[in-house]
Amino acid sequence: MNKKTRVAVFVSGSGTNLQAIIDANIPNVEIVVVVSNNPNAYAIERAKRHNIPVEVIDHRNYSSREEFEREIIKKLEPYRVDLIVLAGFMRILSPFFVRAYKNRIMNIHPALLPAFPGVNAVRQALSYGVKYTGCTVHFVDEGVDTGPIILQSVVPVYDDDTEEKLLERIHKEEHRIYPEAIRLFAEGKLHIEGRRVFIRD
Amino acid sequence: MNKKTRVAVFVSGSGTNLQAIIDANIPNVEIVVVVSNNPNAYAIERAKRHNIPVEVIDHRNYSSREEFEREIIKKLEPYRVDLIVLAGFMRILSPFFVRAYKNRIMNIHPALLPAFPGVNAVRQALSYGVKYTGCTVHFVDEGVDTGPIILQSVVPVYDDDTEEKLLERIHKEEHRIYPEAIRLFAEGKLHIEGRRVFIRD
Repeated sequence: MNKKTRVAVFVSGSGTNLQAIIDANIPNVEIVVVVSNNPNAYAIERAKRHNIPVEVIDHRNYSSREEFEREIIKKLEPYRVDLIVLAGFMRILSPFFVRAYKNRIMNIHPALLPAFPGVNAVRQALSYGVKYTGCTVHFVDEGVDTGPIILQSVVPVYDDDTEEKLLERIHKEEHRIYPEAIRLFAEGKLHIEGRRVFIRD
Repeated sequence: MNKKTRVAVFVSGSGTNLQAIIDANIPNVEIVVVVSNNPNAYAIERAKRHNIPVEVIDHRNYSSREEFEREIIKKLEPYRVDLIVLAGFMRILSPFFVRAYKNRIMNIHPALLPAFPGVNAVRQALSYGVKYTGCTVHFVDEGVDTGPIILQSVVPVYDDDTEEKLLERIHKEEHRIYPEAIRLFAEGKLHIEGRRVFIRD
């Protein structure tokens, strides 16, 4: 029997990407813990409904980012995590944390990186006037939304789009490519060379 | 009879986009002049073959950008140009020139702007590791590749791509969307609001 890939999903909010990953039932992947910095995140309910252990680590209880992150690392230890998946996790991870899980942290961003990094990516895209945007799954490096790209998906921007309509179109693609990226990781198919990620058997 | 839209195409090199625009035979569009800053540009041969007047204005004969551009404006005058189309024109136009033809200069860029502006856009995209890139037709404003976007087209980047293979895939799309953007301009369907371009009847 193959060893399952043990995944921790980090959340702060409603957890729709968490739900998509749960629903994808990825072979040989087990979500072993959900970590939330927000004790009121709806994602916690989703985890409980699926009997996934939850660790709430409220950043407001820690005097520094490093203290907060040391606590996360400590809490993660017994779960022997192979991969951390950021799913709407609203805290920036420091280089200290990123180095501890080098090439084992994924994030999803609602734009075709390197376009529109940072917050309000959908609003940024809409007001810039691009005709296509999308979403990007990438490994997390020490910058903000700068790490090696694993998968992207493209969606059109229509003349009569609102931020809400466009976001909905992007979310649909996120819920498709995030589980796909995790599957590729679990199957050992992702190979990082410099800043490029190649998919190989 | 509708008045034809009078187009000047600016070139510096081989002129494959010029050829695509000629071949598209856009209704109600007449290429009234080809301007080259390079006396040896192969694009000049293409223009002559189609009996399009050519003005060679060699930037090396002028002591400043402004002097060079004043000469272009003077040479263009008798052609009564409605639209300037940059097709591999390798000189940056100053704010002075851009203001003289405000919202009447188009450029095409081999990337999905705002990603990878400036030179070597295809190489930039490849080494960044994006999974999709493409091309962008935009109005020229006073920045480099920053003007309002008219049309974009997306192409995939494959793991085994070379710069040449990827460039070829992008060029194919350029030759499709550049004539399309000129047609929309000629039909009066492009409406600029802020930095967004809407297509309306």
